[in-house]
Amino acid sequence: MSSATIIDGKAVAAAVRAQVAEDVAAYTAETGRTPGLATILVGDDAGSAVYVAGKQKACAEVGIKGFDHRLPADTSREELLALIDALNADDAVSGILCQLPVPAPLDGVELTNRIDARKDVDGLTIASTGRLSLGMDGLRPCTPKGVMLLLEHAGVAPQGREAVIVGRSNLFGKPMAQLLLAANATVTTCHSRTADLQAVCRRADILIAAVGVPHLVKGDWVKPGATVIDVGMNRLESGLTGDVDFEAAREVASAITPVPGGVGPMTIACLLRNTLTAARMVGA
Amino acid sequence: MSSATIIDGKAVAAAVRAQVAEDVAAYTAETGRTPGLATILVGDDAGSAVYVAGKQKACAEVGIKGFDHRLPADTSREELLALIDALNADDAVSGILCQLPVPAPLDGVELTNRIDARKDVDGLTIASTGRLSLGMDGLRPCTPKGVMLLLEHAGVAPQGREAVIVGRSNLFGKPMAQLLLAANATVTTCHSRTADLQAVCRRADILIAAVGVPHLVKGDWVKPGATVIDVGMNRLESGLTGDVDFEAAREVASAITPVPGGVGPMTIACLLRNTLTAARMVGA
Repeated sequence: MSSATIIDGKAVAAAVRAQVAEDVAAYTAETGRTPGLATILVGDDAGSAVYVAGKQKACAEVGIKGFDHRLPADTSREELLALIDALNADDAVSGILCQLPVPAPLDGVELTNRIDARKDVDGLTIASTGRLSLGMDGLRPCTPKGVMLLLEHAGVAPQGREAVIVGRSNLFGKPMAQLLLAANATVTTCHSRTADLQAVCRRADILIAAVGVPHLVKGDWVKPGATVIDVGMNRLESGLTGDVDFEAAREVASAITPVPGGVGPMTIACLLRNTLTAARMVGA
Repeated sequence: MSSATIIDGKAVAAAVRAQVAEDVAAYTAETGRTPGLATILVGDDAGSAVYVAGKQKACAEVGIKGFDHRLPADTSREELLALIDALNADDAVSGILCQLPVPAPLDGVELTNRIDARKDVDGLTIASTGRLSLGMDGLRPCTPKGVMLLLEHAGVAPQGREAVIVGRSNLFGKPMAQLLLAANATVTTCHSRTADLQAVCRRADILIAAVGVPHLVKGDWVKPGATVIDVGMNRLESGLTGDVDFEAAREVASAITPVPGGVGPMTIACLLRNTLTAARMVGA
């Protein structure tokens, strides 16, 4: 049986990071400025700490200056808003991200939306979301943007193709739909209330799963020759696994992302790129 | 042959307007305040003047106070921004709309986005668009909201249904997709680059056409028993006509909106409702 091309997200992410490093060096040589990323981590969630450390390390590797704000879990709303206001006003800070979730009673949506849209490198504020939907320039959420880069790398042009996204989260599914629509795909968004998920998935030239259900998408849900993008990151006893039954789907698809090593590495790569984009926008 | 139920938009709009009148009276009795709608019309486009006059007349009929700002075509950007700022600050003004298009070199997007999101009764600002996409409360664009009311009136529950929207405008197609997604439909957005538009349309339990191409959607593009919503408003020599071949589609659909007298009347009805909603939000 034929087997799909495995889209190597690690390699694509490494290439993006190398390009960002080069572009940062050129930007710094030209302007005398260094792009800066401020991360805000509240509390001591171990997983969040690992994520933030990974982002800071990645910044250092490409020449982006890191501002690593770690605050105790009982930090007040007012202190955090004041910190974000200060970072918004700080010319050395090109991008700001507030690692979610934040401990109760803090409101992650409120904190995120305090970030100036021009520094919103996660692309999750109301303003960035509205700008994406309206087709205006702005910073785009990192994971869906990473998927667009993977498609480009795999030589898959969305225009005129049927794209099906399983999952409608604010973080991924909704902005993914907007990016594919802007790239002229015919876009369908599915979710838990979709009546016949298998039938809808089987229409897809580009099938993207992002629901957090291990192996939800079976081999016979995949249209022969489709490109399959697996955004799931499910921790099982056997290890990290995606939302797609990879072994079955790879026999049907023409190209597919593995988990791990597919979409995952693209998120930080796109965060770095967004930080440089933000630096160019605000001139910081 | 069986023939579809004709969804009477005039009757539904009249019912919405009557309800808004009742709710405005109750609001005024309770708060001592009168909701107010400010319209801004720049230049002397005859069509725009007719639209604005219709909106002002509709306000008067339901007890909403109208503020009718008509300005010459050569009004400066600065004067308009100052007017919008003043209306944003005016407690007597619950809602503001800037009739588009505005004459060059004015920028309709800039003017629209100067409107405070809490007074954005057209629901077209970046903030309102972002809030809709993120599932936050806020003011929704009038025509897609009108379509949701027509579906409700026709007894069509979107949950679990396949909804297909032909057209991806900021004014209609994109917010329509968000509203249907929020109502748990499986939503597909099509457009001029869609490869096989007929096949995609034929999947729809709810088929919505909004492209401005007379009679684009043929009878055999309609799934038997579907609900067909025609948002097209095309002026031909023979009169106003929609994007759907009505006579053919009505033989296949279970329910269908006519043009005129379908979606059209809902827009102003929803504008009135939005103005009352805005009054409640800002307490004006």
